[in-house]
Amino acid sequence: MTKFELTPVEIIRLNQGVLSHENDLLSVEEPLEIILKYFSEGQWQEKKLAVVMRTPGNDENLVTGFLYTEGIIVASSQLQSVTVLELEHENSGLNANQILCTLQQDVQFDLNSIERHFYTTSSCGVCGKSSIDAVKIACPIIVPQNKWTIKQSEVMLFNEKLLEQQKSFKFSGGIHASALFNRQGDFIFLREDVGRHNALDKLIGESIKLDLIPLFESILFLSGRVSFELVQKASMAGIRMICAVGAPSSLAVEMAQELDITLIGFLRDNRFNVYSAPERIDFTA
Amino acid sequence: MTKFELTPVEIIRLNQGVLSHENDLLSVEEPLEIILKYFSEGQWQEKKLAVVMRTPGNDENLVTGFLYTEGIIVASSQLQSVTVLELEHENSGLNANQILCTLQQDVQFDLNSIERHFYTTSSCGVCGKSSIDAVKIACPIIVPQNKWTIKQSEVMLFNEKLLEQQKSFKFSGGIHASALFNRQGDFIFLREDVGRHNALDKLIGESIKLDLIPLFESILFLSGRVSFELVQKASMAGIRMICAVGAPSSLAVEMAQELDITLIGFLRDNRFNVYSAPERIDFTA
Repeated sequence: MTKFELTPVEIIRLNQGVLSHENDLLSVEEPLEIILKYFSEGQWQEKKLAVVMRTPGNDENLVTGFLYTEGIIVASSQLQSVTVLELEHENSGLNANQILCTLQQDVQFDLNSIERHFYTTSSCGVCGKSSIDAVKIACPIIVPQNKWTIKQSEVMLFNEKLLEQQKSFKFSGGIHASALFNRQGDFIFLREDVGRHNALDKLIGESIKLDLIPLFESILFLSGRVSFELVQKASMAGIRMICAVGAPSSLAVEMAQELDITLIGFLRDNRFNVYSAPERIDFTA
Repeated sequence: MTKFELTPVEIIRLNQGVLSHENDLLSVEEPLEIILKYFSEGQWQEKKLAVVMRTPGNDENLVTGFLYTEGIIVASSQLQSVTVLELEHENSGLNANQILCTLQQDVQFDLNSIERHFYTTSSCGVCGKSSIDAVKIACPIIVPQNKWTIKQSEVMLFNEKLLEQQKSFKFSGGIHASALFNRQGDFIFLREDVGRHNALDKLIGESIKLDLIPLFESILFLSGRVSFELVQKASMAGIRMICAVGAPSSLAVEMAQELDITLIGFLRDNRFNVYSAPERIDFTA
């Protein structure tokens, strides 16, 4: 049940000035497409209801709870079956990430209510692989091959510099920040939001307004964890280095590796972990 | 620009055994409906693209970044205008929470690509008020009027008890947990996920399977922050008390107050804050 919840990764760890190569574990993040099968107008119909980015395991729990909290079912007896679909790329080692939820024939629900409001997402694709491919295609930016570096000592200071700037953080303690720094470690600007995706969208929106896109030479600093979608959004803006106070998910790391983006996590208390493209960090300074 | 980012709230604080009534500040969370106006098939068309739960302020940044990272625009010049729409209930003191993004006439994009994958959400309604009303109507559960209590000393132990149980937390450090406790402070079960909404959906799904719904007598413990959607999901399952390690958003508090759910935040290091319905906590024990 929990076999996919953690996945191993090789990292470079810098802790109190000591550099080491280590094996670490990441929380797995993978898309799950929820397909609803229901009886309406005299026939069985199927509808792709949602793609949720989730940690595999307890998927039946997840979809039952999802259907209940979305108001589609009011009891488990209204659910006839929940089936994990085997995808054609199952043999490639990727997990099946589609789940078919079949309602009892007599279950009535308001399809319009669930169609009316939705959150679009570019985390498209039912497996991580295709999502990453989709981003590589969608991204309008051609990335330069040459790599700049930044001193590790400057990276270490990002969190402190952000906190100095993030005036509202000390008041509410409940808000995410996205900030831009340059290669010299200077703070550029930040945006805040209760939602970390929104904070990054705001930052990218301001960068577009200021004509800073593509952000090849800027470093993105995130106050929280790093999901797949955040790496994806950053990549769309041409960002080549992401630093975060929190942990990255498995798919965030996979995507950063694939796109050659330097990904740093757990940047706090005079330490950090590097998950991809470490050559952008100058460890000698 | 930042005037709506924080909002005041009266709380009860218990810190190292000392009880006080205080004024605190919350991060504001409000829905924003993004409407896209584009030229297609010889005429201007409008489409409700998404409802995002965001902190007001920099909304133009937010939608520009959103449209860019979703691949709808590739430069700010493709955006003809961004207009905040005045809603009819503007005079009621609620903020206008609709924004119209008009593309240049010649902008081409693949509408199917943004329709293909979406995340449905029951955070419907364009202002918090209507969202709360919608939940009150949608919720199939009639809540009993009598109130049980739990000892504050038991509440204080939830975090510690969760960490004991949450085996994977110490490995990855990057995963959210939702846990159930009973009124005596006993741990019942937990579910984990990289997404906090998923962790709660999994917990509610398991509760449905175990025939524990409605969860009138159970306490929900969350390892992170509390958004509006989490209170909404909990409410759908009949949960009457939510405790969290992190901060709640303004809309989470508003909803808990309205629905008479006890909401506790910052539950860590021998302290917590109570945002609503404090009468369920026995402060004498």
